[in-house]
Amino acid sequence: MTLTLSDIQAAHDRIKPYIIETPVLRLHNLEEILGCEVYVKLENMQRTKAFKLRGVMNALLQLTDEELNHGVVTSSSGNHGHAVAYASKMLGIKATVAVPDTAPPFKLQKIKEYGAEVIHTTVEERFKLQESLVDEFGYTLIPPFNDYRIMAGQGTIGLEIMNQLPDVDHIFVPASGGGLISGIATAVKETKDSVKIHGAEPANLPKFSESLKNKKLTQVENKGTIADGLVSIIPGEKNFQIVQNYVDTFHTISEEAIKMGQKLMLMEAKILTEISSSIAIGGIVNGEIKVHPEDKVCFVITGGNLGFDQLDYIKDIKY
Amino acid sequence: MTLTLSDIQAAHDRIKPYIIETPVLRLHNLEEILGCEVYVKLENMQRTKAFKLRGVMNALLQLTDEELNHGVVTSSSGNHGHAVAYASKMLGIKATVAVPDTAPPFKLQKIKEYGAEVIHTTVEERFKLQESLVDEFGYTLIPPFNDYRIMAGQGTIGLEIMNQLPDVDHIFVPASGGGLISGIATAVKETKDSVKIHGAEPANLPKFSESLKNKKLTQVENKGTIADGLVSIIPGEKNFQIVQNYVDTFHTISEEAIKMGQKLMLMEAKILTEISSSIAIGGIVNGEIKVHPEDKVCFVITGGNLGFDQLDYIKDIKY
Repeated sequence: MTLTLSDIQAAHDRIKPYIIETPVLRLHNLEEILGCEVYVKLENMQRTKAFKLRGVMNALLQLTDEELNHGVVTSSSGNHGHAVAYASKMLGIKATVAVPDTAPPFKLQKIKEYGAEVIHTTVEERFKLQESLVDEFGYTLIPPFNDYRIMAGQGTIGLEIMNQLPDVDHIFVPASGGGLISGIATAVKETKDSVKIHGAEPANLPKFSESLKNKKLTQVENKGTIADGLVSIIPGEKNFQIVQNYVDTFHTISEEAIKMGQKLMLMEAKILTEISSSIAIGGIVNGEIKVHPEDKVCFVITGGNLGFDQLDYIKDIKY
Repeated sequence: MTLTLSDIQAAHDRIKPYIIETPVLRLHNLEEILGCEVYVKLENMQRTKAFKLRGVMNALLQLTDEELNHGVVTSSSGNHGHAVAYASKMLGIKATVAVPDTAPPFKLQKIKEYGAEVIHTTVEERFKLQESLVDEFGYTLIPPFNDYRIMAGQGTIGLEIMNQLPDVDHIFVPASGGGLISGIATAVKETKDSVKIHGAEPANLPKFSESLKNKKLTQVENKGTIADGLVSIIPGEKNFQIVQNYVDTFHTISEEAIKMGQKLMLMEAKILTEISSSIAIGGIVNGEIKVHPEDKVCFVITGGNLGFDQLDYIKDIKY
């Protein structure tokens, strides 16, 4: 089994009533700075303010009535946890989210607001806990990325980009486990294979770059990153297969450039992004990625969930 | 003489090569909070990051060769000064901007970056200085609002909204001297007179509300406002005539609500606005303006020029 364009088209039909078809905007005010035609796909304006709702909704809408009655479980302190809580509320089913004790209060509160049951745990214990909840209560596990239903949902972003900007040349996608980039790459390459797909990941956590170099799943040392949505230390297995097949280049981005991307988007483009979501833009400003003036480049802005205090990170950043 | 739809259409043809047709976005994530269908016209994404370029460019493009050769002058520490400096640079003419000593360094620096000559002055002396520069050097004065060329330029925003969102019901426009609202009201009412035009001004500087009540130009006491783009103490004379004719309602907005508008736009809609430009949104959140769930409401977001430090104002604001 793998992922195909028709899976993604079916996902789009399925989730359409529940999601926002987010805008693609041209950002003229960034073009001189970045040196290309600049477009952004604004998933920070998605419901729950992140792309994760697409994949989660596509998974939930394929559960049986019995599975829905039992409810779902996941382990996440971030946007995937929000999406599971919010989507479950929309469908009127029970959701349980195992939240590690490292979760910032801001993110924890959102999960509670969406009505999910929160179970506190540790980073080390969370997957074991999640499995014990599946065994004990019959919950269905909703994984964050290594799942074809999740990838098909995230891939709907690729379908929308090809519809909104059919003559795009390059698409840049941030990657953690790889659910988003594997979905988008499948949607785009199977629609128009001349469009180049680029992944971007923190230089401190280069799991895709290393795995591609080694031609096998490679776990990297966790050197830490400010990009709190991009902390996976190893690609998802199913995701990696698709990335090997369809992604043209992977770029590693320095911590300094990651911050520059967020500040540039805020101050020059007037768009608030979460720090993980504008890393490719930072990579270009800082000279870590090259583009050409005639290129039409679309950046997937993956989310906008951050507390006001988090803006302090970028206070003194220059670009 | 007055302002007509055809003046505004001519202005649009004239300035089109120099401005961005800014997007109108639907903001689904604000609709539950505001209680209506929410659209924004994003002039914070205009070149110079404010609407002022439209009026200035329309005025400059109607100068004679002799006037262009002599250069232009204005007095402004804000977006109008930026626009005069930037537009002059685009056209290759000399610009002089008299900047009062109250101008924040952030704004002063932008004017210099765009290549204008800056002359330092005081708030009290600036208009006298500007006139002496006209007399001494033959500069042409580019006024900020009380001028039909300026109003026609700003009115092009109204044309674009009617094209981008033809079934809009209500348009909210912040007002200081009234250049923007008089232009937009003319464009919209002469295109489709059922669309309601609403002005919004700080409760601390209710010059339009008072002038409309008194049926004559009324100067108000300057009680100060955080909305640094809305500090006029009296409407422009030409602007007021059009406002009397075409604007349906004027709303006064509290300082607290003004801050709420900016914070809501940043944290829920993920769009950075300058504090003057989202005051009507704040008025609705704070219950100072009423709207209905079935209304399609478009808010003109007038600009996005602010220093990073200015975000401190809204740090502790709740909505």
